[in-house]
Amino acid sequence: MAPIQDKNFLDFCGKSLIERQIELIKSACEGEIVIVYGSHNMDKVNMTASKYKNVSVVEQKNLDEGMCGAILACEKIIGKEPVLIFSGNDVVERHALELVLKDKDKQADSLIIGKKVNKYFPGGYLEVDKNGWIKNIIEKPDEGKEPSDMINLVVHLHKNSSALIANLKKVSSKNDDKYEVALLNMIKSGVKMKAIKYDGVWMPIKFPWHIHDAFRYFFSKEKKVISKKSIISKNAVIKGDVIICDNVKVMDGAFINGPCYIGEGSVIATNALVRESHIGNSCVIGFSTEVARSYLADNVWTHSNYIGDSIISSNVSFGAGTVTGNLRLDEKNILVDVNGKKFDTNTNKFGLICGKNVRFGINTSIMPGVRVYEDCFIGAGLVIPYDIPKKSYVKGKIELEIKENKSSADMKSRENIKKKL
Amino acid sequence: MAPIQDKNFLDFCGKSLIERQIELIKSACEGEIVIVYGSHNMDKVNMTASKYKNVSVVEQKNLDEGMCGAILACEKIIGKEPVLIFSGNDVVERHALELVLKDKDKQADSLIIGKKVNKYFPGGYLEVDKNGWIKNIIEKPDEGKEPSDMINLVVHLHKNSSALIANLKKVSSKNDDKYEVALLNMIKSGVKMKAIKYDGVWMPIKFPWHIHDAFRYFFSKEKKVISKKSIISKNAVIKGDVIICDNVKVMDGAFINGPCYIGEGSVIATNALVRESHIGNSCVIGFSTEVARSYLADNVWTHSNYIGDSIISSNVSFGAGTVTGNLRLDEKNILVDVNGKKFDTNTNKFGLICGKNVRFGINTSIMPGVRVYEDCFIGAGLVIPYDIPKKSYVKGKIELEIKENKSSADMKSRENIKKKL
Amino acid sequence: MAPIQDKNFLDFCGKSLIERQIELIKSACEGEIVIVYGSHNMDKVNMTASKYKNVSVVEQKNLDEGMCGAILACEKIIGKEPVLIFSGNDVVERHALELVLKDKDKQADSLIIGKKVNKYFPGGYLEVDKNGWIKNIIEKPDEGKEPSDMINLVVHLHKNSSALIANLKKVSSKNDDKYEVALLNMIKSGVKMKAIKYDGVWMPIKFPWHIHDAFRYFFSKEKKVISKKSIISKNAVIKGDVIICDNVKVMDGAFINGPCYIGEGSVIATNALVRESHIGNSCVIGFSTEVARSYLADNVWTHSNYIGDSIISSNVSFGAGTVTGNLRLDEKNILVDVNGKKFDTNTNKFGLICGKNVRFGINTSIMPGVRVYEDCFIGAGLVIPYDIPKKSYVKGKIELEIKENKSSADMKSRENIKKKL
Repeated sequence: MAPIQDKNFLDFCGKSLIERQIELIKSACEGEIVIVYGSHNMDKVNMTASKYKNVSVVEQKNLDEGMCGAILACEKIIGKEPVLIFSGNDVVERHALELVLKDKDKQADSLIIGKKVNKYFPGGYLEVDKNGWIKNIIEKPDEGKEPSDMINLVVHLHKNSSALIANLKKVSSKNDDKYEVALLNMIKSGVKMKAIKYDGVWMPIKFPWHIHDAFRYFFSKEKKVISKKSIISKNAVIKGDVIICDNVKVMDGAFINGPCYIGEGSVIATNALVRESHIGNSCVIGFSTEVARSYLADNVWTHSNYIGDSIISSNVSFGAGTVTGNLRLDEKNILVDVNGKKFDTNTNKFGLICGKNVRFGINTSIMPGVRVYEDCFIGAGLVIPYDIPKKSYVKGKIELEIKENKSSADMKSRENIKKKL
Repeated sequence: MAPIQDKNFLDFCGKSLIERQIELIKSACEGEIVIVYGSHNMDKVNMTASKYKNVSVVEQKNLDEGMCGAILACEKIIGKEPVLIFSGNDVVERHALELVLKDKDKQADSLIIGKKVNKYFPGGYLEVDKNGWIKNIIEKPDEGKEPSDMINLVVHLHKNSSALIANLKKVSSKNDDKYEVALLNMIKSGVKMKAIKYDGVWMPIKFPWHIHDAFRYFFSKEKKVISKKSIISKNAVIKGDVIICDNVKVMDGAFINGPCYIGEGSVIATNALVRESHIGNSCVIGFSTEVARSYLADNVWTHSNYIGDSIISSNVSFGAGTVTGNLRLDEKNILVDVNGKKFDTNTNKFGLICGKNVRFGINTSIMPGVRVYEDCFIGAGLVIPYDIPKKSYVKGKIELEIKENKSSADMKSRENIKKKL
Repeated sequence: MAPIQDKNFLDFCGKSLIERQIELIKSACEGEIVIVYGSHNMDKVNMTASKYKNVSVVEQKNLDEGMCGAILACEKIIGKEPVLIFSGNDVVERHALELVLKDKDKQADSLIIGKKVNKYFPGGYLEVDKNGWIKNIIEKPDEGKEPSDMINLVVHLHKNSSALIANLKKVSSKNDDKYEVALLNMIKSGVKMKAIKYDGVWMPIKFPWHIHDAFRYFFSKEKKVISKKSIISKNAVIKGDVIICDNVKVMDGAFINGPCYIGEGSVIATNALVRESHIGNSCVIGFSTEVARSYLADNVWTHSNYIGDSIISSNVSFGAGTVTGNLRLDEKNILVDVNGKKFDTNTNKFGLICGKNVRFGINTSIMPGVRVYEDCFIGAGLVIPYDIPKKSYVKGKIELEIKENKSSADMKSRENIKKKL
């Protein structure tokens, strides 16, 4: 997800992903929620948890231990109660949780959501017998060799927590798949795990471009309100579904084409066009800017830009005339550099991924799929064709040739031009 | 005309030049029309001819033989019938054809249109006696030495086709002026050719910049209609004479200042301004683009561009921020490179001439009078100062200097800026 | 002030600074006005003076002699009459003049305006005794060591001109401070000079950025009128205080946010935004241009530009996409090069200072605080990071890499894009 920092705290329509997940669980069931988190953002997680009743936080010391480590980290809290394992990075509908929570089958020791897929997906497939009991979980089978149409989705209810924990402790895999290995061991030893097919929304937030889909999904669930504390000019045009928060100012000649979320205190200035985008709090979408299909966090400033199919973190500004390219000349899929390898985004429309605290100069051109990491200053009039590491100051080589001007600035032709205006 | 391909098939207001010429002739007279064409576009010519009654096509094998070769190629079809010779590259009024067709003077063997000129033009002048009989045709006399105010315009009616063909066969000039030489030989041998003065429209389509004039002329002849099948936003402003075809979409905040033709299925997007321009079919004039005094063929996509005084072939797109320069800094006439020599366009406002299937990146600057040939990709952030040959991929040299950023992105001053918005 | 030529002839709302100063004096008192001027602009000064009664002009041969030389240059005209010394470069309210002119204190030989300052200013402070008599004038004391809160402002009434002139002739300083030395000598010799505290407007016009303040001040004093001879489109939006002169054209979709002055014959085109700015006569603010907090003299042409916090002399044009940067990436104060040294403008929002007769190409980026001197041509697609001397022709180094294009321009994806428009 780099340079996007901690996706769990990405705000969607004024609420962070982690808050949305807590509220999802609370809407589906009662009981204690334990968030297992790494040390890096403990303050923020604790603050978030404290807003809710019955939500506690446990630190996972070694993140390499994956889900297994996470569950063992809260062994004492779980005790012997049934436990629902849920990954905060998967966006699902409440229904997915209800399917496992409300299942009455007393034979089942564990209930596992199998997300129905209609085409091949490189995930873990559930192999089931004719009664729906899981026999195996097959990671990334070759296409055509899938044992079912169900992907293992981490919405797992384990009634016998003690057995789960005992099995987790026994696994000695060196990979981060200890949890999955433990599940398989449990199946082998006779624990009955039932697959429940789920055909609803599932959006893993794994790559930055998933943020766009998540916005659209969360937006669709929100009530569409234009705050009475916002100022909408008579000469502005608003169409489609929009949420406009308190103290937003939409100026003369601004256009908003929904679905759009405009966060608190943001300004949509004269001749700006915002369409199908998420604008966080305290942003300024300046004169003659187009923001299309993009996610902007808080305090993003634009001015006569085109921001298309991009993800922009907070406290970023763009000088006038700076443009995010979002379509290759050959219109092929946009490739993003992931650990030195080109990764296909599976879309031919994708722009910039920008970390926080970045300043762009004027008239700069950013190529599709480029990542600019946090704390960078990018100069004026540049072409940025590759990723820029964090804390960079980027300039071009300026070589001006200054000669004597032997012509003079004539106004002759201008009277004719003006007559036609 | 390069990189404009086959001007005869340029569409003006939904109808190609060749169709317009066929219909012009049909409106002036009955009879058989023979189109003489080179082999390169035979399919298209045949398809066009097939739309009309009494129109046939003959291939001219050797285009170097010029008009003489063209006439001899259809010797058999002409037979002994009177023949009207007309050049498809000259835009004239129907009246020019009627002048020769309806002349009742039985003494005249041939009738030749003499286009009245008010100032010197480097063409073939008709020298006539006091009764109007042509004595000579003088090619490009020096200025001040013109024998009359009449230019030989290829609207020629020959009543005695056999004599014409016989004379054409006798001529042995090595130049492409065999037809003119044959006419002079006929005059010398006593054939009576009468000059008929014509004071109407005459526009040779010889250079790309002639396309602008042709558009204005053809547009002026068309009925001005806004299709009921178009969608015009309430917040769009349309002024002056316009033709808007079926399925056109004119979005909020778009401006169209006539004379303008907007072809079928084209979109004029928010904050775009189109003035005095021809927009072909299926074009998208994107957000905040200005198209001024330009000819766009089909499938041209713009996005936050300025396209001024330009000719753009079909399937061309411009990245955001890309600009066609159309005025020199010294405001002198725009020069175009024609076969390695600078050719004066006689106007100081002229932009880009672009072939088909071209893609421009973002924030690129194209200098006035540049030609970009077909099938090119032009990168981002470039300055294009000279012609680009076909099938080129053009990039700049990118040298970024990346240092450590020792400053940080301050938001201090922004609160003050925002207060004023 | 370079490259701004002769600030006295800068027009503010249709009237030059010098005219405004003459009219200020005339509104405060009767009597003869003598303008002392250098030889460089004598014609213009004489022409200006001739518009008024009782205004004459005297040439000061040696401008190095400063104020002393100026007063001595009009010794004969002054004779033995009381004389009011006033600097044309200080913008003050009429009240400042009235304070010295209407003072009835017969004991005072001279009356000196002491501008009240609320914080330290590096000027000449008046040291006074308890009765208000000036004992000394202390140039730039260290901060905290100011003898009073009164700055010596050159609004000085001397009743005994003969004494003043005699003293001026005696001073032998080699600096340009002879006038101040003479005043001190007079005080020492018993001439009674009274300080009169003045708490009104005082704006020295010393640096280009002072022009913005001067515009705002003069604008505030003018009657706000929209001429009936202007053409304001129904689809234009005008807000705040504006003055719009004869023959101005405000086109569809143009926005003017006051305070704004739009001079005679200027055009504000479609989608342009002018805010808090002075636009001189015969300017064209072209399509999609934003002019913010800027001073434009006459005949300035813009086209899809951002002109922010800038000072533009007459006969200047900007190609489409050219932008004046007006905020550093680090948001620190803008520095201007003054005689090779960086001078702090004390503001972090400052753009371009441009001399007259300059042409900018398309898509060029000008860094904040840059000065472009008169008679320059600046090419396309450049970044201008430093001052450009007069009569320069500035180009970049263009190195295009032209390879064979092995891709082709696909239209596949465009149908999908278009569906969404």
